[in-house]
Amino acid sequence: MPIEISTRFAFSLDQPCDVLLQFEAAAIPEQRVLTATSRMGKSEHFARIAAQDGIGERILLQLEGRCEVTYDARVAIDRLLPDIATLARLEPHDLPAAAVQYLFDSRYCPAERFHPFVEAEFAGLEGGAHVLAIRDWIATNLTYTPGCSDSNTTALDSFVERRGICRDYAHVLITLARASAIPARYCSVYAPGVDPPDFHAVAEVFLADPSVPGGGAWHIVDATGMADPGDTVKIGVGRDAADVSFMTVFGEAQFEDKEVTVRKTA
Amino acid sequence: MPIEISTRFAFSLDQPCDVLLQFEAAAIPEQRVLTATSRMGKSEHFARIAAQDGIGERILLQLEGRCEVTYDARVAIDRLLPDIATLARLEPHDLPAAAVQYLFDSRYCPAERFHPFVEAEFAGLEGGAHVLAIRDWIATNLTYTPGCSDSNTTALDSFVERRGICRDYAHVLITLARASAIPARYCSVYAPGVDPPDFHAVAEVFLADPSVPGGGAWHIVDATGMADPGDTVKIGVGRDAADVSFMTVFGEAQFEDKEVTVRKTA
Amino acid sequence: MPIEISTRFAFSLDQPCDVLLQFEAAAIPEQRVLTATSRMGKSEHFARIAAQDGIGERILLQLEGRCEVTYDARVAIDRLLPDIATLARLEPHDLPAAAVQYLFDSRYCPAERFHPFVEAEFAGLEGGAHVLAIRDWIATNLTYTPGCSDSNTTALDSFVERRGICRDYAHVLITLARASAIPARYCSVYAPGVDPPDFHAVAEVFLADPSVPGGGAWHIVDATGMADPGDTVKIGVGRDAADVSFMTVFGEAQFEDKEVTVRKTA
Amino acid sequence: MPIEISTRFAFSLDQPCDVLLQFEAAAIPEQRVLTATSRMGKSEHFARIAAQDGIGERILLQLEGRCEVTYDARVAIDRLLPDIATLARLEPHDLPAAAVQYLFDSRYCPAERFHPFVEAEFAGLEGGAHVLAIRDWIATNLTYTPGCSDSNTTALDSFVERRGICRDYAHVLITLARASAIPARYCSVYAPGVDPPDFHAVAEVFLADPSVPGGGAWHIVDATGMADPGDTVKIGVGRDAADVSFMTVFGEAQFEDKEVTVRKTA
Repeated sequence: MPIEISTRFAFSLDQPCDVLLQFEAAAIPEQRVLTATSRMGKSEHFARIAAQDGIGERILLQLEGRCEVTYDARVAIDRLLPDIATLARLEPHDLPAAAVQYLFDSRYCPAERFHPFVEAEFAGLEGGAHVLAIRDWIATNLTYTPGCSDSNTTALDSFVERRGICRDYAHVLITLARASAIPARYCSVYAPGVDPPDFHAVAEVFLADPSVPGGGAWHIVDATGMADPGDTVKIGVGRDAADVSFMTVFGEAQFEDKEVTVRKTA
Repeated sequence: MPIEISTRFAFSLDQPCDVLLQFEAAAIPEQRVLTATSRMGKSEHFARIAAQDGIGERILLQLEGRCEVTYDARVAIDRLLPDIATLARLEPHDLPAAAVQYLFDSRYCPAERFHPFVEAEFAGLEGGAHVLAIRDWIATNLTYTPGCSDSNTTALDSFVERRGICRDYAHVLITLARASAIPARYCSVYAPGVDPPDFHAVAEVFLADPSVPGGGAWHIVDATGMADPGDTVKIGVGRDAADVSFMTVFGEAQFEDKEVTVRKTA
Repeated sequence: MPIEISTRFAFSLDQPCDVLLQFEAAAIPEQRVLTATSRMGKSEHFARIAAQDGIGERILLQLEGRCEVTYDARVAIDRLLPDIATLARLEPHDLPAAAVQYLFDSRYCPAERFHPFVEAEFAGLEGGAHVLAIRDWIATNLTYTPGCSDSNTTALDSFVERRGICRDYAHVLITLARASAIPARYCSVYAPGVDPPDFHAVAEVFLADPSVPGGGAWHIVDATGMADPGDTVKIGVGRDAADVSFMTVFGEAQFEDKEVTVRKTA
Repeated sequence: MPIEISTRFAFSLDQPCDVLLQFEAAAIPEQRVLTATSRMGKSEHFARIAAQDGIGERILLQLEGRCEVTYDARVAIDRLLPDIATLARLEPHDLPAAAVQYLFDSRYCPAERFHPFVEAEFAGLEGGAHVLAIRDWIATNLTYTPGCSDSNTTALDSFVERRGICRDYAHVLITLARASAIPARYCSVYAPGVDPPDFHAVAEVFLADPSVPGGGAWHIVDATGMADPGDTVKIGVGRDAADVSFMTVFGEAQFEDKEVTVRKTA
């Protein structure tokens, strides 16, 4: 049962600008991109480069005037979905080099300041059980509230104000996981069931890989509860939202509109 | 004329803790580590992994009780030192994949918010000349003031308070460079001339590589003016100070003391 | 030539809520309220109390359901308008008790952190000349940009982002004045010429009163340049915008709309 | 059983500076100052003015060179100490004008952002019982930790980091009370039992006055639990710590030392 994605967004640029786009389903082992068509209009320059951790691609273009991006794809998910509650934690000294950076503070995830909170609130829990307790704490204590957060909102703000959207939920989960010495990263995704339909964001935590003794793997956790990891199509990953915006303009742009539909096909 | 480094620091841990250390000169083409001895006492677990961008190594250990780290090394610098003022900027669409992440906001470098400032203050400048104008602006407007900043201090704080130490100077330079769409990263270094002697931090900007047509390279810029790029020994790099602390403890530690000496030998 | 004011705003409350309103021209010596009519619908409880520094009144009511407030007034201004450039500064030890609180940091005006900046930027200037230099610095370096600031935006944010609306301009001016040991307060006003028409905000600084030897007085300074102090009708004053909102609801409200017109009559 | 206070602090000024001091027991009905001696050395200018809400005095001087302040006093407390748990809340429309400003956000107490938290955490509680639940929440969730906070630390920081000193405890209590529409102010005090001995800070909340039907009064609440309201000597009050520092220097000062002893006499 592949996932069918259809995205459209448009914006205007007063003068020629470099634009960075990342909106396509990543071609990675855990999800097969069956068909995909991206249209971005004509551009003076065009480059595709590997995105962070080699997951997906960033498109760099120079655009001008009114620009419209459309994307249609069908993606089949082959992801292993272990029971997170049972997954062990990897000690920092057992982490692979690539996971270590996801222990550190990032733009929206000032994890260090949350040490005392996680120690008091989640004492005695380890690994996957600890992560699920964080997820449940967020689901209980935050209210999903569109329109109250913006591009300056950090996990600290959302933790205090007890509200936010998918991006903020992911930031709080990542922050509390890192404060517990569990690597966590931000994952921009498409997922059916997101309401209202839009780009979605989830967290990924690095815990034991049940299929590789001593090994570790990234596991999706959605604190909003809207996305089913088995149906979630990854676009890209990063330290936090600063790394995986679907559109970054190096100059002034007027954003016009956006339409995202994601369906599970029969 | 190699650089001679001697470092010692000590700390105490009440209970067994994972500790991440990064204090050794990186073995990279631009600097040859002639001799090096690191001593860290005995540890239950020990791992060496590649640090960010493959520059230097992170050491992960499990330690307990009183711990002392000593490091002695001699390093010869072979770095090319082009005149930064003459270096062209690479357009975002010409950047290699590995440089793109250094355009984004990070924990201590909220660059996006500084767009209007850099556009107004450095209008008409490009590439290396633009970077040097940023460096000069910092040198003119900030006062080197130990004791006024801490692990929560961001480039925004330092920009407002007009003071800081090497770490803060590097953060402001990185922030203003990224706000100008120039990739910039944080570089932890040893350098003679740092006063008082200590670990030092500089910025690196990604501009044209004069020896490779169309190519780019990282170039050291020290807004404090204390380090000569020709004598600077790199330890590691990252988005900002969050990524390259010389010591990160996953638990409670009492820091005791630190001694760093760096000399240019005859 | 009195000023004619007409204000209307409406909001809805799901359940009975206490509401604090402050939207009427203050009855103070420097401005005579010739005629005024306020309508607020029926309320369970109603109290009028003196507002901060005795300037204007706060209305406290308990409201429910849809609420509409209308206000029509004609106000004649009798304000003395000395040339601010010529006004001396009062030393802190010469300040009256009521002015001292306006030297301190407040919610949106963290003045202490700006000491080094004001010392460097406005060195050698004193009193009114110093204040006008601050005003000119703001006019030169900030861009009036609706939609970029909100109720969390402090003077620090606006100083960094170099943009804002009247409220932000006033906060930056107040902050830089206090950082220079000049008392400054926030003043909510009606003024013709504000575009788009709305409630407006200006700063007031406490400098010498040219008509009272040794005395001091509050003087209006509008960093946006939109309001003429000779035509400005004061509603209320406070440390910053936190103290003089036109509407504060102790509960949940849906704001509907607002219409403010201010005209200079023949 | 009067309280005996002995205070000494010293500092140096490189050049003549205005200094604001507030360190004396306030002469107010609830506490009789039996004897008091203040010594501040010679000063060029000297003024005593009423402090905020008429509680205590601010001393404004111009000083130079090395300055030493000593203060010795004996104070008898006559304060009424109702059982706070039984005190009713005053609706905003029943508040006197002077209490209203203590509902608003201030420098260190951004109360508005905590609405959702207080509504969820303290649902169903009213008045004094609500305030005591806030006090107990703070006592349970924060750890008294000297050295982790500074003059930039807000209640938001302390709420996230779950630690602080008396000043931070008072800020969190004030913030959560205001977020519940209960006026709260900061009170700088002397109190026996403070460990280590120092100036101390508590919060005051405005609730019903059990001795005046329909009236309200300020009631001391110390979230640290160190001070007994019956032995607490008030120095001054304010919105938060920004208003009642024992020493504010309008210029550069080197602080030397401070010694505070407070004893309950037989």
